[in-house]
Amino acid sequence: MNRRRKIYEGKAKDLYEGPEPGTLVQYFKDDATAGNGAKHEIIDGKGVLNNRISEFIFTRLNGMGIPTHFLRRLNMREQLIKEVEIIPIEVVVRNVAAGSLCKRLGLELGTPLPRSIIEFYYKDDALGDPLVSEEHITAFGWATPPELDDIMSLAIRVNDFLTGLFMGVGIQLVDFKIECGRLYEGDVMRIVLADEISPDNCRLWDIKTRNKLDKDRFREDLGGLVDAYREVAQRLGILVETDNALTTGPRLVQ
Amino acid sequence: MNRRRKIYEGKAKDLYEGPEPGTLVQYFKDDATAGNGAKHEIIDGKGVLNNRISEFIFTRLNGMGIPTHFLRRLNMREQLIKEVEIIPIEVVVRNVAAGSLCKRLGLELGTPLPRSIIEFYYKDDALGDPLVSEEHITAFGWATPPELDDIMSLAIRVNDFLTGLFMGVGIQLVDFKIECGRLYEGDVMRIVLADEISPDNCRLWDIKTRNKLDKDRFREDLGGLVDAYREVAQRLGILVETDNALTTGPRLVQ
Ligand SMILES: Nc1ncnc2c1ncn2[C@@H]1O[C@H](COP(=O)(O)OP(=O)(O)OP(=O)(O)O)[C@@H](O)[C@H]1O
Ligand SMILES: Nc1ncnc2c1ncn2[C@@H]1O[C@H](COP(=O)(O)OP(=O)(O)OP(=O)(O)O)[C@@H](O)[C@H]1O
Ligand SMILES: [Mg+2]
Ligand SMILES: [Mg+2]
Repeated sequence: MNRRRKIYEGKAKDLYEGPEPGTLVQYFKDDATAGNGAKHEIIDGKGVLNNRISEFIFTRLNGMGIPTHFLRRLNMREQLIKEVEIIPIEVVVRNVAAGSLCKRLGLELGTPLPRSIIEFYYKDDALGDPLVSEEHITAFGWATPPELDDIMSLAIRVNDFLTGLFMGVGIQLVDFKIECGRLYEGDVMRIVLADEISPDNCRLWDIKTRNKLDKDRFREDLGGLVDAYREVAQRLGILVETDNALTTGPRLVQ
Repeated sequence: MNRRRKIYEGKAKDLYEGPEPGTLVQYFKDDATAGNGAKHEIIDGKGVLNNRISEFIFTRLNGMGIPTHFLRRLNMREQLIKEVEIIPIEVVVRNVAAGSLCKRLGLELGTPLPRSIIEFYYKDDALGDPLVSEEHITAFGWATPPELDDIMSLAIRVNDFLTGLFMGVGIQLVDFKIECGRLYEGDVMRIVLADEISPDNCRLWDIKTRNKLDKDRFREDLGGLVDAYREVAQRLGILVETDNALTTGPRLVQ
């Protein structure tokens, strides 16, 4: 096994040099963190499930003409992606009040929002990923106004698709977080969807039981996280490995 | 003395019924508060100075065609204003990093900003006036997108004027907060500047000495608040009453 150079060690994923210039390998770990890293656990099988679920979603987004960094899944824990220049903003789309929005605006958990709301958080762990507005983003040059327009259009399309996708399998999409990046191809630059979309960065509520099928199970110590993620995968029709396979260790791209 | 009905008791000002429909009397008190009311003091003379300084600024803004609620000063502590429907947003314009922006984005106090930044805070004491973005404001209907456009244009014009005005008298305008309202005149609605502009809601630094000539003197227990406000008034050429007159009690409009 030919171990490639690790170029980034994240909280939930590591990035490795890809087989060709302009590509990277995204490796999904089992680490779960919350409260900006204050809480940390290893949850066997989470990485494998997120790799599968994110592959499923990014493949369909590519197919709809929504540009993403995703090329293909390589194995249980890895996917091949295009290297992008990450825009240092977490883009959150909310359909129902939950999490920090409830605290910020004094809303009850589960309040349907009058319309979907897009929020921006500056990616800076030391500052606790603070909420920022378009004004801060453009003034400090984190993204230009046309880039922000592209990001918002992309976020709305992803929200429309995911809302429908999950509704079809009995799940309410409460909110989710995406990251975007600049993809340079020759002379042209495009904004594309990067990172991952998985129950780690969505709030997903079972429509019938109201059960949480997402990372809130970890944040709120509810237990049963892997079962919930597997439930999401199964409803999406994703072939799920045996429990044994889920806990298989790292396999890197050749 | 014919005491009119008090219709609002604020932290720094009270509002009374005006002599004619559609008017109000804005009464400037000596109360200083900070930290969302946690800190509270009576500072003799502050109200009189703010009434004068705000009169001076609003008169000039009216003269420039920037629409405001201001009609005329009535006496030492009162001014006659047009009643508006206050938009529940505090609009902050920043030219230099200070206050909450330093904390939020980890900037050093006094860092010049790449360009002026407009921020919105939802006016809700119970929530601590949280930062919000255009998305929250329009989604919850606190203001419409065209209203927000008007508010931002107005905020930029006020910033340009105040920056120049204060620079002319050796003072740097670091940031300030304004409130806007809907003025209904017949069938038409216009966004106008309301509330006050005074050292209570600006950050003003002496260009030579870097002395603070604003409410930060109170927030940071620096003392000398009334002297600083009087200095601002004097530099603007505002006739200042004797110390004795400053402490005169309430006089209400007949
Ligand atoms: N196509 C891509 N090109 C370059 N970097 C990417 C790409 N897709 C995702 N990334 C980055 O890879 C990292 C993924 O790791 P992980 O999600 O564990 O990060 P993290 O520890 O949560 O840190 P962060 O706060 O940056 O998200 C993130 O920094 C993400 O921005
Ligand atoms: N033209 C106007 N018509 C109606 N209300 C006004 C007008 N101008 C200002 N106001 C309101 O008058 C009040 C002034 O009082 P003050 O500034 O002391 O309020 P406050 O205690 O700081 O509360 P707030 O958090 O609402 O500002 C504010 O609520 C302000 O929004
Ligand atoms: Mg991440
Ligand atoms: Mg006020």
